[in-house]
Amino acid sequence: MPRQVTAFSNPLVKQARGLRDKKNRRREGLFLGEGLRILTEAREAGHLPELLFYSEAGHPLLDRLIDETEAKGGEAIETNADILHKISGKDNPQTVIGVYRAFETGLDRLDRSASPLWIVAQSLRDPGNIGTILRTGDAAGAGGLILIDDCADPFSVEAVRASMGALFTQRIAAARWEDFLLWLRAGKGQLIGTSLNASQDYQQPLYASPAFILVGNEQAGLPPAYESECDLLVKIPMLGKADSLNAAIATAVMVYEVVNQFRRG
Amino acid sequence: MPRQVTAFSNPLVKQARGLRDKKNRRREGLFLGEGLRILTEAREAGHLPELLFYSEAGHPLLDRLIDETEAKGGEAIETNADILHKISGKDNPQTVIGVYRAFETGLDRLDRSASPLWIVAQSLRDPGNIGTILRTGDAAGAGGLILIDDCADPFSVEAVRASMGALFTQRIAAARWEDFLLWLRAGKGQLIGTSLNASQDYQQPLYASPAFILVGNEQAGLPPAYESECDLLVKIPMLGKADSLNAAIATAVMVYEVVNQFRRG
Repeated sequence: MPRQVTAFSNPLVKQARGLRDKKNRRREGLFLGEGLRILTEAREAGHLPELLFYSEAGHPLLDRLIDETEAKGGEAIETNADILHKISGKDNPQTVIGVYRAFETGLDRLDRSASPLWIVAQSLRDPGNIGTILRTGDAAGAGGLILIDDCADPFSVEAVRASMGALFTQRIAAARWEDFLLWLRAGKGQLIGTSLNASQDYQQPLYASPAFILVGNEQAGLPPAYESECDLLVKIPMLGKADSLNAAIATAVMVYEVVNQFRRG
Repeated sequence: MPRQVTAFSNPLVKQARGLRDKKNRRREGLFLGEGLRILTEAREAGHLPELLFYSEAGHPLLDRLIDETEAKGGEAIETNADILHKISGKDNPQTVIGVYRAFETGLDRLDRSASPLWIVAQSLRDPGNIGTILRTGDAAGAGGLILIDDCADPFSVEAVRASMGALFTQRIAAARWEDFLLWLRAGKGQLIGTSLNASQDYQQPLYASPAFILVGNEQAGLPPAYESECDLLVKIPMLGKADSLNAAIATAVMVYEVVNQFRRG
């Protein structure tokens, strides 16, 4: 049975609220997911929260979340909008917030044969971009996202929110560049870099499965040493005054080109 | 000659800071642009600020901005990082901030023959999406962005920032749906809606110039009555668990399909 908590000083409320900070997420190995839609995506992907805070009972999807959370040993906590506001920091908080165990992000847990397409992000700093790329990857049938070097935290509230639940459906790995290269070259895989310095249009090559699409930092793009490790270096045409696209946009344009080639056969 | 201002109480500082609020932007017909990169894009597109605040003199691009701003009757104001922080509200403010006159956004100012491609957004609520779509439009050689119904303000700080200067290079119009339809049907133009309800894959049709790509609200998509006015209704394939893409991502995927068709033929 869910218990009721309405005190700001409750230690579970404090713990949940603390997970907005990266250092607390790291230390406790937990993160926050918000909203019935995202928590339902998570449940359908096999992820149930350790703690489930909710303010408005009665929705059948919520009932199911509560039942399954408790059946798996998690705790469901009925609370109010003020507490949810305190946890989320948002003026109009979602009516459901879950505290989840962070996933293992070792490269060795990825099965590259599980998908024809993977996304690799290097030093992406904007958590919104990380989440949006996860959402795009899910939509495009990618296997997951590999984070290279110092990326924003995929378990941050902003990233989880922008992913719209894809954080729970996509595989996520984190690795240093050297370790990623060793892993990549130990099997099949075409590494495709997008770069303003490339001479080849992104629609020119024939892409091969599994394709690893590599995107660089929002400001700096890919380091030249990383570009030179790519099997293909391609550019998206820039027809106006701008010299670059938003990183998540460039990723999506590349991803759908590869998907479209694979769909054609 | 630039004058120096270091007082928080200075009326120009107060006025500039006020432009973070939509109601002040509307009343004064002014908006903020931040950063040497964006202000230089603006200058190259023929837009100079009425007020130019800067904290670090000496960059040749800044010198040129100051000279041209003053030559056009604007005022250049040397100040410090604290004042720029106060104006922008950011912890690490850019070293240059401009106050610009907002553009006219009447549909009658658009010349549809100026570009083979236009983007039409309906009730987009996220200013970051508006800015990102402007940036994508610029990169893809679009003529501009037409905002239908209640969209976020394209002159908001978030939109200008996300546009990376494309706000100054793209045409921007705002209209009610009925007025847009009257204008559209008075000339050539193919209205292409993206919808989860469409049966036709987005790579199937042959697009015709000028193409008007219509995207709907982030949560609700396009209203059915709007979809039924489209010449083509297409869907981007969703191959995973997600049922939709981020609005700016979906726009970019559509836009580059049209661009790629036009490049081939």
